[in-house]
Amino acid sequence: MARTGRRPGNQDTREAILKHARDAFGEKGYEGASIRQIATSAGVDPALVHHYFGSKEQLFLAALQVPIDPGTLIPGIAAEGIDGFGERLVRTFLGVWDSPTGTAAAALIRSAVQHDWVARMLRDFLMQRILKRITTELKLEGPDVPLRVTLVGSQMMGLVFARYIFKVEPLASAPPETLVPWVGGTIQRYLTDPLP
Amino acid sequence: MARTGRRPGNQDTREAILKHARDAFGEKGYEGASIRQIATSAGVDPALVHHYFGSKEQLFLAALQVPIDPGTLIPGIAAEGIDGFGERLVRTFLGVWDSPTGTAAAALIRSAVQHDWVARMLRDFLMQRILKRITTELKLEGPDVPLRVTLVGSQMMGLVFARYIFKVEPLASAPPETLVPWVGGTIQRYLTDPLP
Repeated sequence: MARTGRRPGNQDTREAILKHARDAFGEKGYEGASIRQIATSAGVDPALVHHYFGSKEQLFLAALQVPIDPGTLIPGIAAEGIDGFGERLVRTFLGVWDSPTGTAAAALIRSAVQHDWVARMLRDFLMQRILKRITTELKLEGPDVPLRVTLVGSQMMGLVFARYIFKVEPLASAPPETLVPWVGGTIQRYLTDPLP
Repeated sequence: MARTGRRPGNQDTREAILKHARDAFGEKGYEGASIRQIATSAGVDPALVHHYFGSKEQLFLAALQVPIDPGTLIPGIAAEGIDGFGERLVRTFLGVWDSPTGTAAAALIRSAVQHDWVARMLRDFLMQRILKRITTELKLEGPDVPLRVTLVGSQMMGLVFARYIFKVEPLASAPPETLVPWVGGTIQRYLTDPLP
């Protein structure tokens, strides 16, 4: 695989790519950054970036040290159809966030919050890509769908901030099964209720 | 009014108090900080702090450069009773946030997000105090009320982050009257629906 410059150990190369990826995503946002530019600034061949990390999305998640791609959970939640989707989404979501993965994710958000690119990250990626996946997997159609899914995003984002980042009680300590019908009902309403 | 040290201009004294107030609120949170300690570290008499800023709450808002105290809006919204409270809350809330005051508040949150104390600020103050005021003004009672109002807080916080901080479209540009029934319905449901 062609590379420029002296060949450092694989670990060093991976780290260098991740560092330049963070810079690029921070500066240009998820959509604006490209694997080609990241490879160039890291002094490696784009093919090597693909080899190590796969897609741009996977590189992004690796740069953020996100242990699992939340987007990959959506198809499973959507597979049973739109009935009960809200509750399943919230249950899965709380399951991940209440696990050690969630503790790591909260620490990540808290540290990321100190950098400007958290705004880009959350907007471009966590919101847009997850919401787009919900739209696609549930085969939602209609002019009101984009607003509906961003309302879903607003409640899920508020749940993360209130429960895991700001730890507002009693929400922060409530058992998941107490929250699932409450918040799941909100998600379901945003997705399936007639326009108000 | 007794003060220690050389007397600077009033403006300098005010600024010094605000600086020490920000440090104290940042270090100890809203509940932990005291006017007495802030006055001592600023080298002034506590009475002078009261003279300039009134209550601890008003000092906190001044330290944050918050142009209006959102808590003072709650009694007016609650005065008409719980029927339609959700929609009135969201309408008032969007009215403030869509105004120049909201632009300033969003800039404040974005800059505050770079400091650790935003977590304390949002938890101790914006959430707890506003939510407590909702509870009091609506005379809500029952063991489930604290969870209900923090669910309200989670959706309102999510709305702020999605619309004003991360500017997720189409939520960010939606007319208030489109959002009021959607989000107001969620707030109303959290406050008045039977336990799910």
